Parts: sequence; C-alpha cells; structure tokens
Amino acid sequence: MKRILIIGGVAGGASAAARARRLSEEAEIVMFERGEFVSFANCGLPYHIGGDIPNRDALLLQTPQSFKRRFNVDVRVFHDVIEIDKGGKTLLVRNLQTGEEQREHYDVLLLSPGAAPIRPPFPGIDSPHVYTLRNIPDMDRILAGLHHDQPRHVTVVGGGFIGLEMMEALHQRKLEVTLLELADQVMAPVDKEMANMLHARIREEGIDLRLRTGLSAIESLDLPAEKTSAVPTANSGGLRLTLNDGSHLDTGLLILAIGVKPETLLAAKAGLELGPRGGIKVDAGMRTSDPFIYAVGDAVEETDFVTGESVLIPLAGPANRQGRIAADNMLGRAETYKKTQGTAICKLFDLAVASTGLNEKRLVQLGLPFEKVYVHPGSHAGYYPGAHPVSLKLLFAPDGKIYGAQAIGKDGIDKRIDVLAVAQRAGLTVFDLQDLELTYAPPFGSAKDVINMAGFVASNHLKGDTLLCHVAEVQARHPHQLVVDVRNGPELDKLGRIPGALHIPLDELRGRLHELPKEKELLISCQVGLRGHVACRLLSQHGFKVKNLSGGFKTWQMATAE
Amino acid sequence: MKRILIIGGVAGGASAAARARRLSEEAEIVMFERGEFVSFANCGLPYHIGGDIPNRDALLLQTPQSFKRRFNVDVRVFHDVIEIDKGGKTLLVRNLQTGEEQREHYDVLLLSPGAAPIRPPFPGIDSPHVYTLRNIPDMDRILAGLHHDQPRHVTVVGGGFIGLEMMEALHQRKLEVTLLELADQVMAPVDKEMANMLHARIREEGIDLRLRTGLSAIESLDLPAEKTSAVPTANSGGLRLTLNDGSHLDTGLLILAIGVKPETLLAAKAGLELGPRGGIKVDAGMRTSDPFIYAVGDAVEETDFVTGESVLIPLAGPANRQGRIAADNMLGRAETYKKTQGTAICKLFDLAVASTGLNEKRLVQLGLPFEKVYVHPGSHAGYYPGAHPVSLKLLFAPDGKIYGAQAIGKDGIDKRIDVLAVAQRAGLTVFDLQDLELTYAPPFGSAKDVINMAGFVASNHLKGDTLLCHVAEVQARHPHQLVVDVRNGPELDKLGRIPGALHIPLDELRGRLHELPKEKELLISCQVGLRGHVACRLLSQHGFKVKNLSGGFKTWQMATAE
Repeated sequence: MKRILIIGGVAGGASAAARARRLSEEAEIVMFERGEFVSFANCGLPYHIGGDIPNRDALLLQTPQSFKRRFNVDVRVFHDVIEIDKGGKTLLVRNLQTGEEQREHYDVLLLSPGAAPIRPPFPGIDSPHVYTLRNIPDMDRILAGLHHDQPRHVTVVGGGFIGLEMMEALHQRKLEVTLLELADQVMAPVDKEMANMLHARIREEGIDLRLRTGLSAIESLDLPAEKTSAVPTANSGGLRLTLNDGSHLDTGLLILAIGVKPETLLAAKAGLELGPRGGIKVDAGMRTSDPFIYAVGDAVEETDFVTGESVLIPLAGPANRQGRIAADNMLGRAETYKKTQGTAICKLFDLAVASTGLNEKRLVQLGLPFEKVYVHPGSHAGYYPGAHPVSLKLLFAPDGKIYGAQAIGKDGIDKRIDVLAVAQRAGLTVFDLQDLELTYAPPFGSAKDVINMAGFVASNHLKGDTLLCHVAEVQARHPHQLVVDVRNGPELDKLGRIPGALHIPLDELRGRLHELPKEKELLISCQVGLRGHVACRLLSQHGFKVKNLSGGFKTWQMATAE
Repeated sequence: MKRILIIGGVAGGASAAARARRLSEEAEIVMFERGEFVSFANCGLPYHIGGDIPNRDALLLQTPQSFKRRFNVDVRVFHDVIEIDKGGKTLLVRNLQTGEEQREHYDVLLLSPGAAPIRPPFPGIDSPHVYTLRNIPDMDRILAGLHHDQPRHVTVVGGGFIGLEMMEALHQRKLEVTLLELADQVMAPVDKEMANMLHARIREEGIDLRLRTGLSAIESLDLPAEKTSAVPTANSGGLRLTLNDGSHLDTGLLILAIGVKPETLLAAKAGLELGPRGGIKVDAGMRTSDPFIYAVGDAVEETDFVTGESVLIPLAGPANRQGRIAADNMLGRAETYKKTQGTAICKLFDLAVASTGLNEKRLVQLGLPFEKVYVHPGSHAGYYPGAHPVSLKLLFAPDGKIYGAQAIGKDGIDKRIDVLAVAQRAGLTVFDLQDLELTYAPPFGSAKDVINMAGFVASNHLKGDTLLCHVAEVQARHPHQLVVDVRNGPELDKLGRIPGALHIPLDELRGRLHELPKEKELLISCQVGLRGHVACRLLSQHGFKVKNLSGGFKTWQMATAE
C-alpha cells in the first residue's frame, strides 16, 4: 500500500488528492494544511468582500469531513510541515493547535504550498490596517478591519488581478479608493495601450488611480493607547503613507497586492532544485529533482508555451490540471503537463480584460520579430441591440504563427480569447483565423466574427495587400509621410483627430485623388481600420504608397491616452 | 478591363462585389438584384417582427447608392437575370420596372442567388394569410398582415432556425402560437435528447408545440367579398388548417418555415452542373463547371468538413467567406474554401442552442463508429452569482477525433461551441481538450472549464478508466445489469429517479459494498455524471463491473422527455 502525503490543501493539492483516490482505493492519502481551510474558492475572496458573493460559506467548497467521506482522504488542518527528510522519506509535521511534532513517512510526496503575497520591507509594513489577501482568514481580517475601523478612504497597492479586484470590491462598498501602481500601467499581462482603456474606466468610477507611484513608507496614525489595547477602538487614526514622489497620503486601510512569490522555503531547505525564476523546478510530469517528490501550482515553475522558458504562472487552472497530472504520475501513469500560455481574464466593472500567450513588451524583450494588428468589431451584429466593441490586439510572427492576444470590452471577451488560446495551442496561423467557422446569429456574433476580422487584417498585412502602420510610426512620422484621415467630417468633430492629418472622406476619395501627393507615403486612418483598408486598396492601385493605421483613430486614442 | 457581373446582392454577392473592388480598381462590377434591396440583414428579419430591432432601417446595411459611392459598383435592383449564355458570355436581364430586356456581356460571372423557402403543393397553399420569410418585402408583408388582420392565433410550420425565431417573435407580440413540426424534434442540427430541452422551454412559454405533426391542407375562411376586395377588410376569417392526423386547426396567419431550396433554375437552364443535393456544384475555389462562372452562398453545395460529402449549408458565415474567395479567384488569386462544419446557433427565449460538426443521427446514418459524452457543468464558478448549466454533448471517434458537439443553456453556449469548432477544425482530439487553457475568473468560467470536463470524461472513457453507458442501454438493460443511483436521498425525492434503481449515496458507498452484487454489471447514475465517475472508480477497484451513465439523471430526463 502506497502512502501519499500532500502538503497544501487548496487547488493543486485538493485536485491531486481526489484524483489519487480515484486511481487507487488502496493508497493511504494524507493532506496537511497549515490553515483552517482546504479547497476553498481562492478566486472568490474579493467578490465576497465586495458583496457579489453574499454568503461566505459559498467559498468553502470542501471540508476535511467531506473529503474524508467522499475520498477517504485524511485531511489534517492546522498542521504545518516544517521539514522534509528526502533520504528517510519522512516529514516533520507540527500540529499548530497542540504544538506537538511528529514524523510522517511517505512513499511519495506532493508539494502544493502555493505562493505568498509579497510584503516588501517598507518602514512600517507591520502597522495595523495593512492587509494582504490570500486565504479565508485574510479575507475575514479585512472584513473585520472594515467593520471595525469604518474607514472612509482605502488604498490598494498594485494593479494586478487581486489589486484590481480588491479596488472594485472596496469601491463597491462605497469607499473612496486610491490605487497605487509603480509601473506605467495596470494589468501587466496586456500592453500599455490596452491597459489605458482600463485606466480610463477606473478613473470614470471616481477612483484615484496613480500610475508610476510606489509606496516608500507606512506610518500608523493610531493613538498610542489604541496600540496597546487588546481590543482596537473605533475611529482609529489609520495610516499615513509616504509615496515615492515624497508626497503623503492618509488612508484608513491598505491592501498590499503587489504580487506573490512561490512558497519554496520547505523545498529549498530539503535541497530540492529551484528554477531560474525562484520557483520549484519540476519536469513535465510535475516531478521535482527528487524522484519521490512532486510539486504543483503557484510554487512551481512552468514552461512557457511559446518560448519554452521557465515562468511563474500563479493561476488556478494550471494548478488544478497539474494536481491531476501529478496524481497520475505518482500512481504509475505517464502524463505530462502541456506548457502554459498564461491565459487569463479579469472583470473590471462592466469591462473584461483577457489575454493569452506573449504580449508585445515580452516580444520586444525577447527580440523576436513580430507583427501586430488591432481590430474593434462589435461583440455581435450591430443591428441587434446590446452589441459592444471588442478591442482585440493580435500578435504574430512574420510567418503567421500566433504569439498572443489581448482583448478588452463589455461582452464576448472571454469567448474571443478562448478561441485564440485554442488556435494558438493547436498551431493555427493568422491565415487560418480567416476561415474559422464560429457560431453566428445576431444575438451572439457576426457572420464575419471578430476573430475572422483579425485574421483578414493580419493576412492582408502579411500578404502585402494592405500594409499596416502603428501609432508610434504615425507619431514619429518623417516629412515624406502624410497622414490621411478618411472618416466623415462629423466624426472628426465629434471624436477628435490626429494632428496634422489631411482629411478626405473615403466616399469622396476616388474623385479627389489629385489632392494627394504621389511622392509621399500616405498613412491612412479611419475610425477602426476598416475604411482605411478600403482606402489603402483604392490608393495603392492608383499608384500611391500607402499604409493603414491598424485599428484606426480608436487605437490612436488608446495609445496616446494615459 | 475585366467586366464582372454578379447575380444576387445579399451576403455572398455583396461580399464578392466589395472584395473584387478592393482587389481591382479597374474592373467593371455590375450587381443585379431581382428585389429592391441589397446587402440587408437577412438574419435580423425575425427580430424586427418580434420588436427586438425596432428600427427597420437598421436592417438595410447598404444601398445601391452607398455601394456606388464606396465601391464604385453599379447596383441594379429590380433587375432579374433570366438567361445565361455561357458560350457568348452574356446574360439576358429584364428590368422589372420597365419590362425592358437587355443583353449584358461578362468576362466573369458570379451566381449568388440564394435559396428560396420551400412551398410544398398543399391544397390551399396560395391562400391569403400564408407567408414565408426570406427578405425585406416578406417581412413587410407579414407585418402588414399582422397589423391588418389582428389575428389572435398564428401558426408556424417548421421548427428550424427561422421557424423557432418566428415562433418567438410572434409569441413576443402576445399572439397565441402553434408550432407544427413533422419530425419528432425541433432544431434538426442537434439530437433529439438535446432538442427535448427546447421542447420543454417552448411549452413553458405556453406555446402549442405539436411534434410529428404536419400540414395537409389549408382552407381560407375569409368571406368571398373580402377575397375580391382589393383592400382586405379587417377581421378576416383566417385559415382552417388540416393536419396530417386529420384534425383541424383554425388560425389567423401561417408562417411556412419548413426549409429552403437552392435557387438553381438559372444555373440549370444554363447547363451548369448541379451536385447530388440539388445545389450548384462548385470546386474549392467556388468555380462552377464553367470556368468563367463562380457561385457562392445558399445556392451551392459545400463539402462537409468531417465526411467530405456534398452538403447544403444555408448560413450567412459561409456565404460571406465564399463571396470573398470567389472574388479573389475571379481576379487571379488562388484561394480555397476550407469545407464546412455547419457551426450554428439559435436563441430561444433565454436559451441558446448551438452545434458544430456531425450529430449522432448523422453518425448512425453514416455507420461511423463513434462515442459520446454528456456534461452539464456551470457556465462559470458556481459560487459566483448568475451561473447556469451548460448541457454539452460531444461526439468523437474511438481514437479521440472530434466529430461534433451540441450545447444548450442560458449562458456561455456560443463560447463552448466556438472553442470546440476551432478544436475540431485544428484536428485536436478529446484528449487535447483536457489541457486547453481557457480564460478563468469566477464571473467567466471555472478553473476546470466545461470543455476541460468534457475532455476528462471522454478521455477516461477511451482509456477505460470509467466506461460510460447511455440512456438507451439503461432503458433496455438486461437482467445481469443493475442501476445504482449514488445521489443523496433528498435529490431523488425532489428530482425523480430511474425506475428500478438501487439507491446508495456516494458518501456511504465504501461502507455498503456488501449490498452490491459482484456478478452483475452496475450502471451507476448520479445527477450529472461527476459523482457517478467517483463511484465507478471506487467500485471498479473493489472488483465490481461498472459503467457510468454519462450526464447522469439530468441526461436521463432529457432523453426520456418528449
């Protein structure tokens, strides 16, 4: 009989325990969890704080009892594993409630310790009213703090998934919110021009978004009496934050959401190999450098689908699948984890932002030659009510291979990124996107879907039918280049214009060719790129040198916003 | 200079005209349209009748004038092409407004005549109050009829896309609706057990759905006076329908929506080759049997993606793409149409029903060996509000190749079928579905998405980990087979049970193994198949012969409903 020990009882660990039992009724399976809860809905925590999920119990997916009953897994909560003895194949486990320590033998061990919120050593980081959010007790503490202190103003540090979700949750609780982000954009998986749409939406809600702004120090404004009091008193003084520009910000509560780091202390102490990004190194079968120890989830390094590099992808989907695969391999099967695209999505008020694969920042860093297109078609047929633009950016190699995609909008964002994630994984090219046969009826899509449109634009560019240019080129244009805006007059008045652009509406173009200089390269712009394409085809056949501004004035606005 | 003539100005013809102009400024492009309108939103017609699209003008996407201005295309509406002279490369065209006929020369010709509603020769088919819906004038006539006659009750014949959309539109106008369908199910692209969910939903709305019921004869109840009156008088007598069971049904207005047939008269008269399904035969480049004549859209036969057979797929997506490809090839390029999966979707009240690839009925007809799974996971994480079950049926070959998929539900149906359509087209197998990395955050999906779940179930079956059985086998079970229901007691009481099933809740199973006969094959059932899988794994390891009822009691209910 095999004895399987599992460290960590959330996504990866719980998936592995259930799968292991489905594969072996005979194995003894013990799962150690340092905290009180196993298999809770990690991703739901901000939504309970914000009130979308009113019932806290909805987040508790399994209990030690339910795990025992269904899967005959011995779940030991409040048990901290403090040492792995690889040679002897034992763990030293401390019962956090009794303080008792015990050695536990394993035949095979799974590490699923997760990742911990980063808490940089700011002066004052241990002040009261400073919170991170990783698990149920963290959530309870934040709710207790909000309830007790009744802050008027709160601050979130970090504009990633958790930071944005917490920003929205706190805003939804009618609090004044400041969001501090050290980078020049929130939501690092997408590129800046895409993130700028999020910035606008965040500010539209009245949230005080401060980009390129970091935290330098935290000072407690609480009265000394309160500090020593066992029960904190109401109306605490809160915090005074010092920002990296030297300014101060007084706030009642601070959420630190600047990222997570893999929990590797135990693995490192045991001499397990770590990878270049500081996570536990595993092979495709989720095996660590020790043949009897597997590791999964936020603590391990994965292989990037495009580059083959080691990456840290702290997401629930991969953790769940890896848990399943590790259990398979622990019990004699030979399954492999198929690399990670990092497909992700985040709700932001009525917007969704999603991405898969590599972004432009990363492609530039890697020095890979790439092309990109922007399209902004409706989420479904424009004549059927409720359509919203899908702003999609598609990145690809000069041979058409898909590198990655990003999308933002109110409707159908998950669908488009899912389709592109599958296309990328399956090795389809941008040429193939033209022919994808997707569901169409007016309430759901268009006869030429967003994805087909992106495929058309990318293919037209790669085939040389309509070469594209981008905002940076328009901004830094040479004297031999001239911007021509082919929208209608009222659109320019209403929506704005690119400085210095010549204006000839598309439908007048054939009759006004003589107004255009043949010796210049014409950079054509319309609202979203479609009329620009028609103009480019028309002009190039009349002997003009042309490029179409991909995504038109709408992309221009995104890229030139802040 | 090339002279391109196009017959038919809607999806395929209009796409081809625009594309042809983008490829050639020099070509002379003339588009003949028998009706008044070009490039209208065909798929939007029922939604204007139902009131979802209040503004009729929203359906008119282009006009002859706008086509001329933007694409320099000479659009001639009310022009009926009555003859093609292949040898002389001319058309005989009649101006329907003047009666004048004229010969027009072409260098290359595109046929995009579409398909016409089938009007079988019922006695009384030409009675007043009998309508079909194909174009704007049809829609206008139906609206005028509704306005004038103020019927209390209307009848729709045919439960396909148009029939269901018209049924909903008329129901939305607060009319009593009877839907007659000759088959035992509506929505032929999905299988009967899936369609049964639609039947339930239709009846829930109070609509009189009659399956296996056809129309035999139509009799006008209008007074003779009215018949001869140029302006119909109000409160017409309406129609008396004779149904195929001999019964009668009085109704105020009848919509015939029993399908369409390709408009091939012109092509056939010209000696162009037709295919086995009665559509115009084209090659992958959309060329007919005459090298100077192309054809696209509902009038042509396409190649089925799975079987390679000729099929008729009267959908907007293929028509648009084919128009583009035909234009490419007419102007010297070499593009090919990539076969058709028939991906389609229909809204039905708050439900969506969608499919791609082959259904089970077709696989049985073809005699192809196949497997199937049913899953019913939530459209997103269950703990986040607004999740609805996605009932998905996946059909695949014994080697894992995807044959087709069908889904019904309130949310995320388009997304799942799109993902599977791409997976199928890219040649992924059901094993690959396990590893697809799809967008996940609680409002949008689950860490293990519907698609991953379907992949797990299918893979478990093909690998022999948990063999599946289906409702037919449970219904026709042999004495050596025993159904075991592993749901909880309250679920059985509330939701119903399979007659003759032994009941042992999953969580009690390990302690009650002695109650189960080892010599029998146990057919395990739970609510949706998940607990059944756990039970099967448990029991098989204890030496029992087991199969899991795919999709559990929920699929049982679907399959045994009407």
